Amino acid sequence: MQQEFASRLLEEAVTELSRLPGIGRKTALRLALHILRADESAGTALGQAIINMRKGVRYCGVCHNISETDVCPICADSRRDRSCVCVVENVKDVMSFENTGQYTGVYHVLGGVISPMDGIGPDVLEINSLVERVAAGEVKEVILALSATMEGETTNYYIYRRLAPYTDVRITQLARGVSVGNEIEHTDEITLGRSLLNRTLFADSIKR
Amino acid sequence: MQQEFASRLLEEAVTELSRLPGIGRKTALRLALHILRADESAGTALGQAIINMRKGVRYCGVCHNISETDVCPICADSRRDRSCVCVVENVKDVMSFENTGQYTGVYHVLGGVISPMDGIGPDVLEINSLVERVAAGEVKEVILALSATMEGETTNYYIYRRLAPYTDVRITQLARGVSVGNEIEHTDEITLGRSLLNRTLFADSIKR
Repeated sequence: MQQEFASRLLEEAVTELSRLPGIGRKTALRLALHILRADESAGTALGQAIINMRKGVRYCGVCHNISETDVCPICADSRRDRSCVCVVENVKDVMSFENTGQYTGVYHVLGGVISPMDGIGPDVLEINSLVERVAAGEVKEVILALSATMEGETTNYYIYRRLAPYTDVRITQLARGVSVGNEIEHTDEITLGRSLLNRTLFADSIKR
Repeated sequence: MQQEFASRLLEEAVTELSRLPGIGRKTALRLALHILRADESAGTALGQAIINMRKGVRYCGVCHNISETDVCPICADSRRDRSCVCVVENVKDVMSFENTGQYTGVYHVLGGVISPMDGIGPDVLEINSLVERVAAGEVKEVILALSATMEGETTNYYIYRRLAPYTDVRITQLARGVSVGNEIEHTDEITLGRSLLNRTLFADSIKR
């Protein structure tokens, strides 16, 4: 779509907006015109927030979660159990686990999962730094919390093998089972099989 | 969705992005994380382009199209026929007509159509300024190029009545007919009726 823009500034904003994932030139134009219609302060606040974020946010040197400081608030929090490390794929997953309100340990963000098809090998992921963290000796449990996909399972197994020398570290993974709220009818056979195999005491679920 | 953000700067960017139309907090987070992963220069360019646009773009004092100057490039262009004014709903419509490459006159951007249901009366639209332009005497033709909707037709009629005193000004409207590329089977009866009533000489279409 070629468009005659009345303004070079508008055109530049549309070009930059359309670089965002899932935003084509049509949507970018709609967004830009919305920004033009809204208060000047709103447009400036949006632009400034993006600049501030991009300049101010970096990655935690310990867990590789996003952070504004060298060590993120979770790693720096003395109330968190540093002997328990939950290995996740990305920053969003950290947020998801934090939202459960059930986890008091720390994290390790891999930055993805092993996927030879996409050219992602173990070396581009933060796996070596995980092994170093474990080697340092403080870690007692590593929870593998990657997606239950082929790539996730492969990565789980790879990490499991890499951590095998540290025999006193428990390596666990998230329970596989029927999603809460899901009907049996719509649950796949593999999940059903795993949920049967790993069935838990009903009395335990009542206590919670 | 409540989320524990590891960074206040990220949270602010997500909040600002989610104010955009059609962008919820989930999408805003996805966009923000994309900006964080991309080059720092790309994020800064996006933020700066939005700020520059919002500060630099204003509205043309003559036609109310967006412009970086007091009078937009179209109104300022001496090669454009200022005796012919095409009345459109919004800035995007100006772009659409410019893209046809078939129009050499100037525009008048109303900023919407009359819609009592949405509380949009004639006074919030740039109708008075259109009447003033016509009253000034230079205009010979006003092309009503609003949407073929109930609101568009109402606005057409309202403008037609307001311009009635200027009897030497031709007031025209866009042809109604079968859309180019559309099948008769999928064209509604009202459009078919109008296209039959306003049929044109076949020989004329061959000449073009």
